[in-house]
Amino acid sequence: MNVNYINPFLIAIQNVFKTMIDIPIRLGKPTLKKDHAAAFDISGIIGLSGDVTGSVVISLSEEIALQLASAMLQDEITNIEEDGTDAIGEIANMIAGSAKAKFPTDKTTLSVPNVIIGKHKVRYPSGIPIISIPCETDTGNIAIDIALKMK
Amino acid sequence: MNVNYINPFLIAIQNVFKTMIDIPIRLGKPTLKKDHAAAFDISGIIGLSGDVTGSVVISLSEEIALQLASAMLQDEITNIEEDGTDAIGEIANMIAGSAKAKFPTDKTTLSVPNVIIGKHKVRYPSGIPIISIPCETDTGNIAIDIALKMK
Repeated sequence: MNVNYINPFLIAIQNVFKTMIDIPIRLGKPTLKKDHAAAFDISGIIGLSGDVTGSVVISLSEEIALQLASAMLQDEITNIEEDGTDAIGEIANMIAGSAKAKFPTDKTTLSVPNVIIGKHKVRYPSGIPIISIPCETDTGNIAIDIALKMK
Repeated sequence: MNVNYINPFLIAIQNVFKTMIDIPIRLGKPTLKKDHAAAFDISGIIGLSGDVTGSVVISLSEEIALQLASAMLQDEITNIEEDGTDAIGEIANMIAGSAKAKFPTDKTTLSVPNVIIGKHKVRYPSGIPIISIPCETDTGNIAIDIALKMK
């Protein structure tokens, strides 16, 4: 995987958390994902297509999702399904949008975010490398996975 | 919602089921989705972007997912997570790809499919119309939802 397409995500995640959510986040080393076994309560998913084709998935517990949505909306969100899904989708959208702006090529566009609610796993097509960026907040971990296929 | 962008999906679903899966499917009337409450075991999700931005979601029970994957791969698939996710993702990919080929404009590209496994709900961003196409097979129903935003 070309580091010129991964570094933009590391910068984007830090920027989005700093400027839009204002919650401290520490990023671990990006690793090539070997299994798809982690199960989460909430996932925000957005697709990329054009010069780069793929998807960005941010997966987290309901507790952290409520915390991020509350911080982003500056309101106390207590029901993620009723009031917080747009915020989680928007976090995926902002990370992907901010990252693609720093890609070496500029013909990549985004789809609309979907948010998955319920204990679930997210699977990717076989044969596409998945880069997992472990993220740690003061209240728990967030998994941000990036599937990218170059033209 | 412009019928010129919905009819291609009706044709695409019928074509994909006829030529790639060979399972009879009956399509109901497309309706504007009012709630997001249906919960499924398996969803294949793929994004569209460019002239048209959106996502296509095919949601179904594990039983029907196994049946479709087995028919498509011409092999008896008994574990959807181990052996069937690529087939479900590919169904979403083929429906979206076949539909977009018939769009009035030609600058729409696809992301890669993700497959969600586990009892879950799929949510869409507020303010984007979601067209739901009810599909009936001999062994049960499949929901195909399309979120489309014109440029």
